[in-house]
Amino acid sequence: MGTKTNPGRFFEDYRVGQVIDHAVPRTVSGGERALYHALYPARHALYSSDAFAQACGLPAAPIDDLAAFHLVFGKTVPDVSLNAVANLGYAEGRWLRPVWPGDTLRASSEVIGLKQNSNGKTGVVYVRTRGLNQRDEAVLEYCRWVMVRKRDAEAPAPETVLPELKKALAPEDLVIPEGLDFTGYDFTLAGEPHRWSDYEIGETIDHVDGVTVEEAEHMMATRLWQNTAKVHFDLSFRPEGRLIYGGHVISLARALSFNGLANAQMVVGLNGGAHAGPCFAGDTVKAWSEVLDKADTPAPGVGALRLRLVANKDGAPFDLRGEDGRYLPGVLLDLDIWVLIPK
Amino acid sequence: MGTKTNPGRFFEDYRVGQVIDHAVPRTVSGGERALYHALYPARHALYSSDAFAQACGLPAAPIDDLAAFHLVFGKTVPDVSLNAVANLGYAEGRWLRPVWPGDTLRASSEVIGLKQNSNGKTGVVYVRTRGLNQRDEAVLEYCRWVMVRKRDAEAPAPETVLPELKKALAPEDLVIPEGLDFTGYDFTLAGEPHRWSDYEIGETIDHVDGVTVEEAEHMMATRLWQNTAKVHFDLSFRPEGRLIYGGHVISLARALSFNGLANAQMVVGLNGGAHAGPCFAGDTVKAWSEVLDKADTPAPGVGALRLRLVANKDGAPFDLRGEDGRYLPGVLLDLDIWVLIPK
Amino acid sequence: MGTKTNPGRFFEDYRVGQVIDHAVPRTVSGGERALYHALYPARHALYSSDAFAQACGLPAAPIDDLAAFHLVFGKTVPDVSLNAVANLGYAEGRWLRPVWPGDTLRASSEVIGLKQNSNGKTGVVYVRTRGLNQRDEAVLEYCRWVMVRKRDAEAPAPETVLPELKKALAPEDLVIPEGLDFTGYDFTLAGEPHRWSDYEIGETIDHVDGVTVEEAEHMMATRLWQNTAKVHFDLSFRPEGRLIYGGHVISLARALSFNGLANAQMVVGLNGGAHAGPCFAGDTVKAWSEVLDKADTPAPGVGALRLRLVANKDGAPFDLRGEDGRYLPGVLLDLDIWVLIPK
Repeated sequence: MGTKTNPGRFFEDYRVGQVIDHAVPRTVSGGERALYHALYPARHALYSSDAFAQACGLPAAPIDDLAAFHLVFGKTVPDVSLNAVANLGYAEGRWLRPVWPGDTLRASSEVIGLKQNSNGKTGVVYVRTRGLNQRDEAVLEYCRWVMVRKRDAEAPAPETVLPELKKALAPEDLVIPEGLDFTGYDFTLAGEPHRWSDYEIGETIDHVDGVTVEEAEHMMATRLWQNTAKVHFDLSFRPEGRLIYGGHVISLARALSFNGLANAQMVVGLNGGAHAGPCFAGDTVKAWSEVLDKADTPAPGVGALRLRLVANKDGAPFDLRGEDGRYLPGVLLDLDIWVLIPK
Repeated sequence: MGTKTNPGRFFEDYRVGQVIDHAVPRTVSGGERALYHALYPARHALYSSDAFAQACGLPAAPIDDLAAFHLVFGKTVPDVSLNAVANLGYAEGRWLRPVWPGDTLRASSEVIGLKQNSNGKTGVVYVRTRGLNQRDEAVLEYCRWVMVRKRDAEAPAPETVLPELKKALAPEDLVIPEGLDFTGYDFTLAGEPHRWSDYEIGETIDHVDGVTVEEAEHMMATRLWQNTAKVHFDLSFRPEGRLIYGGHVISLARALSFNGLANAQMVVGLNGGAHAGPCFAGDTVKAWSEVLDKADTPAPGVGALRLRLVANKDGAPFDLRGEDGRYLPGVLLDLDIWVLIPK
Repeated sequence: MGTKTNPGRFFEDYRVGQVIDHAVPRTVSGGERALYHALYPARHALYSSDAFAQACGLPAAPIDDLAAFHLVFGKTVPDVSLNAVANLGYAEGRWLRPVWPGDTLRASSEVIGLKQNSNGKTGVVYVRTRGLNQRDEAVLEYCRWVMVRKRDAEAPAPETVLPELKKALAPEDLVIPEGLDFTGYDFTLAGEPHRWSDYEIGETIDHVDGVTVEEAEHMMATRLWQNTAKVHFDLSFRPEGRLIYGGHVISLARALSFNGLANAQMVVGLNGGAHAGPCFAGDTVKAWSEVLDKADTPAPGVGALRLRLVANKDGAPFDLRGEDGRYLPGVLLDLDIWVLIPK
């Protein structure tokens, strides 16, 4: 017995070109929006206010881009990362269409690369994941690679296939939500006066505020995305504490970045990201950003910023790597994103 | 003064045939659904996705059956169990109609049995409770018996009336939601391939995953159902810890049972149940199931399974009773339910 | 760098007559209502049930009055109290129009008084804050005064302006929601039989129940209102514990007051209030009330009670002030409100 439970896939279960349709579609409502506000100090006006979103040319406030990301990501966990040893990286993440209350999301992944590690015990699996709504429209896509255990160390290594992934999305790769128009943007209601032209490449911003994370919060957040990976919930085999879902740190950092980047309304591109260190309950998470690039967009009044968004604990703002090139101990997250901001 | 607060009913306040209309009707929305997903690792697709529910012949995803149960149960607490010493049992629980976002639930109970205990200080009260929606349609009903303190040990014992309650509902007692049709059921989206015919009577399933419970979670869950029994919230008179609402354990176990019973979509019958041991924050809850019976239903593609659903802590899967016939110390819940599953 | 983050206003940044439009408008839904029920033991039927509210002449159940208050209050924090040393008082608070799911709230404050303290380092700022919906209708207003640090102790003191504020709203100042009619009020569904005429001026009510507060709960509540004041979230500079948002204690006390004041359905006036002592996680909050005044209203079947609502910890019910006139150590909150109750 016991054969009915899902043991997860092991490295030798993946084939390049394989398409995995993930389970448990999910309909979102104002409930998910309210919970996002309860779980993260999220204040970007476009996700907080239907009226603000309408003044920006959208029919209503969408579900937060990162909530959509987590929902899609959560569906992939049982198929992609149940036996993962490490979450290695992201690339070519694009938000293709806003998610609205009432939408139902599902997800599908294609295996785009495989490389067995030299130890013969693990391998790296590359997938391109798409989130789809109830009309089969893609709402977001991203590539992700994880290190996965082999079931049987003796199993033969597959042919190595390494996907070619962009170091960063070009501005023309970004998809601007239909109708988005920042020409009448209300900076007072948004909370800060800084517009696209006020940010310089190389500029760094300390987002100042910190949040000390509690167990119940990160578990509720992670469950909300139906991500049920055991390490986030079951203390009985983790006396050192539950490992906090990396996406929880992403959302915390993004929400904290309001203070200094209140007008960076929409996340539309994920160029890359590293979960540089583990986060546990009791850690105080802070964030800082660096402007990596700037670009114009064809949408009226809308500019784009490429940002490094770093979350850390214990450390000083702007800490990132040591002299050896490695992340400093307190660094939790090093994310590379494109955001939309009024010009 | 102080006479305006509710002291709760004592054993001598109940009469067989008495009908108690419970207070505080409640309208549900997508908010309750989102919170259910945040509080429990719930992944059954029918409650997660409107699109999935529609493909199964329903107008949309209903509120989780157990959420409906908790809402109705919570209303009865001030009238039935405020002075209860123990929650002794359930029988003849049936879900009669799905609850949809926008519905308003209220509850009413009829006293169907009374038996004073030989110590003269307590007695057992049997009630049949019905949950009703805003159109006065019954959405669920169940019998429950509790041991209640007497206000005055000298009060005369009432005539003993013991209701005749079925050991288990017969398959023909179960109410299948109108329109339910599993002939086009999508096993991939639901998350597992196992259908009705894949389960055998006597089969046991270890649901593998565990959740270590935190105080804030169980309090939020219990409050969400407007169950305000003091023992769940007030630590000042419980240095040993708050007692976790038994229904929280039911929902945890049911959600954990996804892993192995992902297609056991709807709970339609509650044959019985025992809260075998107390649960406290810090406990890691796991679950296992045993297939007790199988039955066909008249609905297209829909079969029924009778399941024992057991929640335990510390123990091994499949632990239940010791040689003395008593529940083993780690057993928290022994529930007997009917579920609907695609054939 | 770092100049893009909001340092908050200091005492010398305020001018009498200055109008501050606060940022981050917020649309509410059933999600906020569900979370309010999960975070507080709220059971007043008018906010719990659309059907009950409709039977009272309203189109549906509004968002809890205190939730509307917290949402408006939260928006003012970055502009009014980021550098506040103390939250000194409230006056002339009135709920002007119910807030419905789908409404978008924003807030605006006018500086109505200034007084530098004799130490030259701080001053008191008086503001009148208004919450507005998406149709620019005022939904509530209140005056509040806070002690704010000066950026520069050498800055000249402004002319002292002290606003004239009513000690208490007169009954004719109260705004009764359009359509409210308690002539067909269902006391059974509401949970208690006590009507307006059953309460006497001077009567005190011990609300009996207690809730021991957890960190995750008060942080989620405070974030839900987008109140991101650091002291509520960041333990790294507060080894003594996070300071719980005073509004969390207000909502706890109000919810606990159901037991004895279940029919005090709507809060329509805030005459004054003092956060008498700090609240920390682990504290068990209880509440008691005193009837301060009674008044008739022009709405059918609707009476008004003026209540003192006191929250305390550790103390006995009815504790308030010591012989020296100061609040006793366990007193957390002393609130003076007008509520509507069926006659």
